[in-house]
Amino acid sequence: MKNFFPEVDKVQFEGRQSRNPLAFRYYDPKQVVGDKTMEEHLRFSMAYWHTFTGAGADMFGSGSAIRSWDKITDPMELAKARAYAAFEFMQKMQIPYFCFHDTDIAPEGETLKETLNNIDEIVALFKDLMKETGIKLLWGTSNLFSHPRFMHGAATSPNADVFAYGAARVKHALEITKELGGENYVFWGGREGYETLLNTDMKLELDNLARFLHLAVDYAKEIGFTGQFLIEPKPKEPTKHQYDYDVGTVLGFLNSYGLEKDFKINIEANHATLAGHTFQHELRLARINGILGSVDANQGDELLGWDTDQFPTNLYTTTLAMYEILLNGGLAPGGLNFDAKVRRGSFEPMDLFYAHIAGMDAFAHGLLAAQRLLETQELEQFIQERYKSWESGIGAKIVQGQVGLKELSEYAMANDQITHTSGRQEMLEAILNRYIVEA
Amino acid sequence: MKNFFPEVDKVQFEGRQSRNPLAFRYYDPKQVVGDKTMEEHLRFSMAYWHTFTGAGADMFGSGSAIRSWDKITDPMELAKARAYAAFEFMQKMQIPYFCFHDTDIAPEGETLKETLNNIDEIVALFKDLMKETGIKLLWGTSNLFSHPRFMHGAATSPNADVFAYGAARVKHALEITKELGGENYVFWGGREGYETLLNTDMKLELDNLARFLHLAVDYAKEIGFTGQFLIEPKPKEPTKHQYDYDVGTVLGFLNSYGLEKDFKINIEANHATLAGHTFQHELRLARINGILGSVDANQGDELLGWDTDQFPTNLYTTTLAMYEILLNGGLAPGGLNFDAKVRRGSFEPMDLFYAHIAGMDAFAHGLLAAQRLLETQELEQFIQERYKSWESGIGAKIVQGQVGLKELSEYAMANDQITHTSGRQEMLEAILNRYIVEA
Amino acid sequence: MKNFFPEVDKVQFEGRQSRNPLAFRYYDPKQVVGDKTMEEHLRFSMAYWHTFTGAGADMFGSGSAIRSWDKITDPMELAKARAYAAFEFMQKMQIPYFCFHDTDIAPEGETLKETLNNIDEIVALFKDLMKETGIKLLWGTSNLFSHPRFMHGAATSPNADVFAYGAARVKHALEITKELGGENYVFWGGREGYETLLNTDMKLELDNLARFLHLAVDYAKEIGFTGQFLIEPKPKEPTKHQYDYDVGTVLGFLNSYGLEKDFKINIEANHATLAGHTFQHELRLARINGILGSVDANQGDELLGWDTDQFPTNLYTTTLAMYEILLNGGLAPGGLNFDAKVRRGSFEPMDLFYAHIAGMDAFAHGLLAAQRLLETQELEQFIQERYKSWESGIGAKIVQGQVGLKELSEYAMANDQITHTSGRQEMLEAILNRYIVEA
Amino acid sequence: MKNFFPEVDKVQFEGRQSRNPLAFRYYDPKQVVGDKTMEEHLRFSMAYWHTFTGAGADMFGSGSAIRSWDKITDPMELAKARAYAAFEFMQKMQIPYFCFHDTDIAPEGETLKETLNNIDEIVALFKDLMKETGIKLLWGTSNLFSHPRFMHGAATSPNADVFAYGAARVKHALEITKELGGENYVFWGGREGYETLLNTDMKLELDNLARFLHLAVDYAKEIGFTGQFLIEPKPKEPTKHQYDYDVGTVLGFLNSYGLEKDFKINIEANHATLAGHTFQHELRLARINGILGSVDANQGDELLGWDTDQFPTNLYTTTLAMYEILLNGGLAPGGLNFDAKVRRGSFEPMDLFYAHIAGMDAFAHGLLAAQRLLETQELEQFIQERYKSWESGIGAKIVQGQVGLKELSEYAMANDQITHTSGRQEMLEAILNRYIVEA
Repeated sequence: MKNFFPEVDKVQFEGRQSRNPLAFRYYDPKQVVGDKTMEEHLRFSMAYWHTFTGAGADMFGSGSAIRSWDKITDPMELAKARAYAAFEFMQKMQIPYFCFHDTDIAPEGETLKETLNNIDEIVALFKDLMKETGIKLLWGTSNLFSHPRFMHGAATSPNADVFAYGAARVKHALEITKELGGENYVFWGGREGYETLLNTDMKLELDNLARFLHLAVDYAKEIGFTGQFLIEPKPKEPTKHQYDYDVGTVLGFLNSYGLEKDFKINIEANHATLAGHTFQHELRLARINGILGSVDANQGDELLGWDTDQFPTNLYTTTLAMYEILLNGGLAPGGLNFDAKVRRGSFEPMDLFYAHIAGMDAFAHGLLAAQRLLETQELEQFIQERYKSWESGIGAKIVQGQVGLKELSEYAMANDQITHTSGRQEMLEAILNRYIVEA
Repeated sequence: MKNFFPEVDKVQFEGRQSRNPLAFRYYDPKQVVGDKTMEEHLRFSMAYWHTFTGAGADMFGSGSAIRSWDKITDPMELAKARAYAAFEFMQKMQIPYFCFHDTDIAPEGETLKETLNNIDEIVALFKDLMKETGIKLLWGTSNLFSHPRFMHGAATSPNADVFAYGAARVKHALEITKELGGENYVFWGGREGYETLLNTDMKLELDNLARFLHLAVDYAKEIGFTGQFLIEPKPKEPTKHQYDYDVGTVLGFLNSYGLEKDFKINIEANHATLAGHTFQHELRLARINGILGSVDANQGDELLGWDTDQFPTNLYTTTLAMYEILLNGGLAPGGLNFDAKVRRGSFEPMDLFYAHIAGMDAFAHGLLAAQRLLETQELEQFIQERYKSWESGIGAKIVQGQVGLKELSEYAMANDQITHTSGRQEMLEAILNRYIVEA
Repeated sequence: MKNFFPEVDKVQFEGRQSRNPLAFRYYDPKQVVGDKTMEEHLRFSMAYWHTFTGAGADMFGSGSAIRSWDKITDPMELAKARAYAAFEFMQKMQIPYFCFHDTDIAPEGETLKETLNNIDEIVALFKDLMKETGIKLLWGTSNLFSHPRFMHGAATSPNADVFAYGAARVKHALEITKELGGENYVFWGGREGYETLLNTDMKLELDNLARFLHLAVDYAKEIGFTGQFLIEPKPKEPTKHQYDYDVGTVLGFLNSYGLEKDFKINIEANHATLAGHTFQHELRLARINGILGSVDANQGDELLGWDTDQFPTNLYTTTLAMYEILLNGGLAPGGLNFDAKVRRGSFEPMDLFYAHIAGMDAFAHGLLAAQRLLETQELEQFIQERYKSWESGIGAKIVQGQVGLKELSEYAMANDQITHTSGRQEMLEAILNRYIVEA
Repeated sequence: MKNFFPEVDKVQFEGRQSRNPLAFRYYDPKQVVGDKTMEEHLRFSMAYWHTFTGAGADMFGSGSAIRSWDKITDPMELAKARAYAAFEFMQKMQIPYFCFHDTDIAPEGETLKETLNNIDEIVALFKDLMKETGIKLLWGTSNLFSHPRFMHGAATSPNADVFAYGAARVKHALEITKELGGENYVFWGGREGYETLLNTDMKLELDNLARFLHLAVDYAKEIGFTGQFLIEPKPKEPTKHQYDYDVGTVLGFLNSYGLEKDFKINIEANHATLAGHTFQHELRLARINGILGSVDANQGDELLGWDTDQFPTNLYTTTLAMYEILLNGGLAPGGLNFDAKVRRGSFEPMDLFYAHIAGMDAFAHGLLAAQRLLETQELEQFIQERYKSWESGIGAKIVQGQVGLKELSEYAMANDQITHTSGRQEMLEAILNRYIVEA
């Protein structure tokens, strides 16, 4: 295997005192935290598209990235070089999982058949590299949004041929995900939404979206794919309005169409904030509904209105995310996938390392802080005390369904001078600071 | 009945050519539009709180409104004066419905009992005034958010006594709504949300919110209240995050808790935009799910991040709203309630008239434009043509569930060169302009 | 000249009753409105980049546009075909002006010299086509943001070589703008901003930006270019923060660096809303400061946080924009440049026509409404009455500088019971509706 | 002096290991950091309005705060009790400064004269209490936004009598600020903006705003007030659009009206984010323009669109703010004023302590981190290296004004293959984390 990153050796844990920018200061894969190692808790995954296909283009400029495989012109040779480079990178970074869309890994052909053949050729290579390195597939998916054929949607296209085409691609993507031992399969509906209601039959589109998902579930059973299905919500971008707006909306959709048993949710931090929610909110809502499946670990800029997909470095966010994940009993078979791209100005290969180190250390740090929060139960005790009226008396009766409005009204007549206790938000924020700094 | 607005006679329809600012130019109650009169289509309602209790205070300033009843100091006398003034106003404005919260109409007492007695006294007066004027109650509700006892929520309070207190108030509000022949009952959960997740048990709070709603439904059955229950979504404000975020979220919530048969949705335009949606989007999503119940007719300022509750004057919004409402077969038993307040600088009594005229004419105009759109079927034909692939061939097979991924894959292999037609957004926007101007 | 749009003849004015989607219903170039023809008022311009270079790509998908020149593979031949097509399009659309960036019109070469030669070759062709058609250049500019060399800025790059490179390009762009009789020269600083303050010397960058502009002004004088210089504000995107945030910020910048005499502002509607302002606000602020120079006519979606560059069809926006422009005494030598792109789903050549018709009719409609508003003086009279206290008494003394705080305090002691009149916002909004519909 | 907070003794520094929620863990007033003590660096100030007048009301609910002086009904007695309580609180909290609006401290009377007399009576009490405690006045101001007389603006009112009234109040506020040794005087123009342009003469309003400020400057000279004048920008709320939008806008305004020598800026964190900027951005822009005067220390919620005025606890924000402040050579005569209010649910007196402790520790922590960043010069060295091309060669020539576009063009022709270095954003963010955690 050619050495694509000769300037970097394996990135190692060196501890807090290290000033080596190519070392981990927090992420120590084998360190036991609570009942698992860090590696088992965090289940880090690399996003093939951003890290090995993306080049730093944005709406106002072309790609800026400099990569050692840039000069390869044959598309299949380029695809192979990227595969070798990706596995070298993951090994050096100690990242145990990766995720990909079918068209990330191989060029589209003139025909669907040719496209699938191209993909299959790289899948075979992946299989070898996975065996050789022990790196595993967190999830696979099919890109049903980039090609112009999906301009009006895939499952929600006004054109039934596009639905069929998308179905063919999902069929194949399920097969290769199974082939590679993928532990999950994700649907992100990048074009499943609308640009204007003036030309849109929303009812038919939503029905078709549900039909599409049912077909995938059926086929997975048929071929014995036992991975977890995931839906990834996003409120908008590229479309004006995407049907999988946020966790709450997806929950309603799954329920309405009888899909609630078959799907969990893949939550992306940046998508949460674009929908007006904190990342923690989306994790919490999914968790308490039993559908927190996996995470796209990145961060947005709340002052910007588009998906910036930055590497996650904010310790508040990583701490509160890991807090929810620990309360969820972990994410497995999901994981923390770095759906993040280096800034356009971070165009050197070294930035891929620095960025992943920044993200991995931020999540390892967050894990330690969250674990400590749960060990001391400092927040939990506050909350328990705050809600203790529900454990006995009228509270318990309400919870047990023993009282109706009449009984409650009688109770209230006799108990109408309410005394409260403070919510103590400011004190709790100071406590959170302490856990983050001391982690 | 004292004359509170001596400067205004009954506001009449005078037609497009009128320059009288105290006349309707579009709203002609008895004009037949399609299958109903304008009055029947629009079912206008006045919001008691904004128009007869609100005084123009904001977070940085006290009330500015000048009202002829301001000098009354006895709270019950003031409440009565407002009631007379309100019915005079509605009569002069030809508004057939009103809506209120219990505490809009009467002052809170020292005890719950006293509060309910105060309310009952005004309800009796309302009953007389309604009989006398023929004005009807669109919906009633209980204000479970303004008093400090609800600071941490009502149904979602950490304090079970508050749940009980809220239950007592809803019991009573249901009774008076029934007493007054109210056609709907609304829940807007102004404090049913959270300020910070650091102190919040979201699961218990959501469970309790559902319990609360179930209790209300049960009690309504018990007392024979047959009005429609409505939930009004809002994403935030006053709380950082409200559980009834938007239509999609409420849909999921209702399904999850077995409430989907008992509730429809009351959609407020300004709440829609605060959640990142157009008003039309929320109406559409509710409509196709069969839960579009009623409308809070106002408008926000999309460049401002709080609920401005402006009177609706934007003809795009009113046209597209009426388009959805007509497709819904109307709103009854719901209606168009002006949950809107005059600007703080529009402090004179005359502004109440000008503002309601502006809103009523804007909706009457929108009705005419929407009706014409549906008569010509210009948009419908475009959409039908756009989706025609679903009526035969592979499209029909998909819809009828006759094909799986395998069959679709075979089909796609043979049909992989997709041809599209344009979505024509720009042309459709120009067509919409034509309908609005020509209405 | 090859016929690139054989399916369309010259688009003509047919009046309100027309249902021909390829006709103008409002835009009648020779119709006199007030003191000028519509053509003279509106000074429409086509944006070369969106309409003849853009292909509909977005951050999640490749280009979708189908154009008859797509199959040309030689870059210079393609550039020429686009030029012929553009002039054919403008002629058929009766658009009298166009705007371009240097690299829109010709491919970049291996070297700067080659790039400039490529551009010059097309400029020569433009010159012929302009002579032949009578179409004129509203403004020219240099694209200093798309190529990776500008990834950290052009005038504000940390790398002085990039400043020099940008300077060379501006020098050349000034020369060709002069050569083509361009009436303005625009600076939009797409990368003149920062991604993170952690690596940014803001002071040096702002100083360098001013230096760059001074150099351009000096060189323009040297070569006798007498066109108007314009700065186009934008708050963000592509960078996290752009220095030319909005009109107010640019005003401060120009003043601070002694550039206020040499620059006016080119205001883009969508940039205004991204900065949290209405389009009208930005026009007004520029107008009253005497620096309203030109307009990028498009519209954004206020519920989306990125630059959508939609064709302007909202009649409120076009009416209020034309209101400010009429009060400005027109825009000349500036104009209304359609910096707008057809939606990705509007991929057919016909959509270019429909979209420009929609925009041109919306602005012609807005012109008529605004002209009528100014003729009747209905708003002006209201405003004059509202501010009349400034024309005599204490108001006049304040304006004339005859009183200090002491005198004002004495006056206030004797006049402390203020009476106000209503701002009448709701009534005024209804009046605006009337003008728009009746225009 | 009555003991209003008997439950709390003086809050003391106890160090990182302390778990006492009523102790400082970071703020040690006499600890020397660089060249000054913490107390001298931070110059903490209490906001009289939020902490001693505010009661927790919001747009949807009345005040929730429980205070030991609530039961006092006589307005002047209440005002005095608050004054005693405020000084007790500041002493116990070791806060050396406070800020107030005139109407925070005493009730408005029937007449202007009575209002000023009321204020004077409390000012006399303040003077005694300040002498007794050593607590000082950071800045004074007049509230020209809460009373309905200011509904259409104060300096920018359409009504000249309101301008005069406001002038009288500013005259008096300047006098009492001088009397109390106030080190600054602030203008926050809460109603200096507009609700709709349909009724607004923006030019006259801006001219009048400048006139008002000039009058204040003149009067200050007349009476020998030598404190610093400050303008506090805010983009919106309560008005739709405020003239002092942000630092960039104010900079332009001051320059345009010849006020740039007399004013610096008071930057509020939450106002920065409402305008679409980071707090650091606004501090930086003011700093490099030499007009960073003082800070309103709070934090907003970037997912909410209104001014939440939360206590500042985010360590990223406090660290980067202190970084700018240290580079500014400190804030004196300005300071860090906690323009922050406890959450409505934090209604107990203890929350006032917890909240200020949280904010003071967060800023003390930020100071330590920022000081260390400047001592190691880790960021500075990166930046210096990044911009080194400006110190010699073509960069130096540009800076020194030795080259024009021609020379630069020649240079670029010979140097057109640019090489860049990465901006390293991700690496720098990881470094910032290290400084925050290790501070």
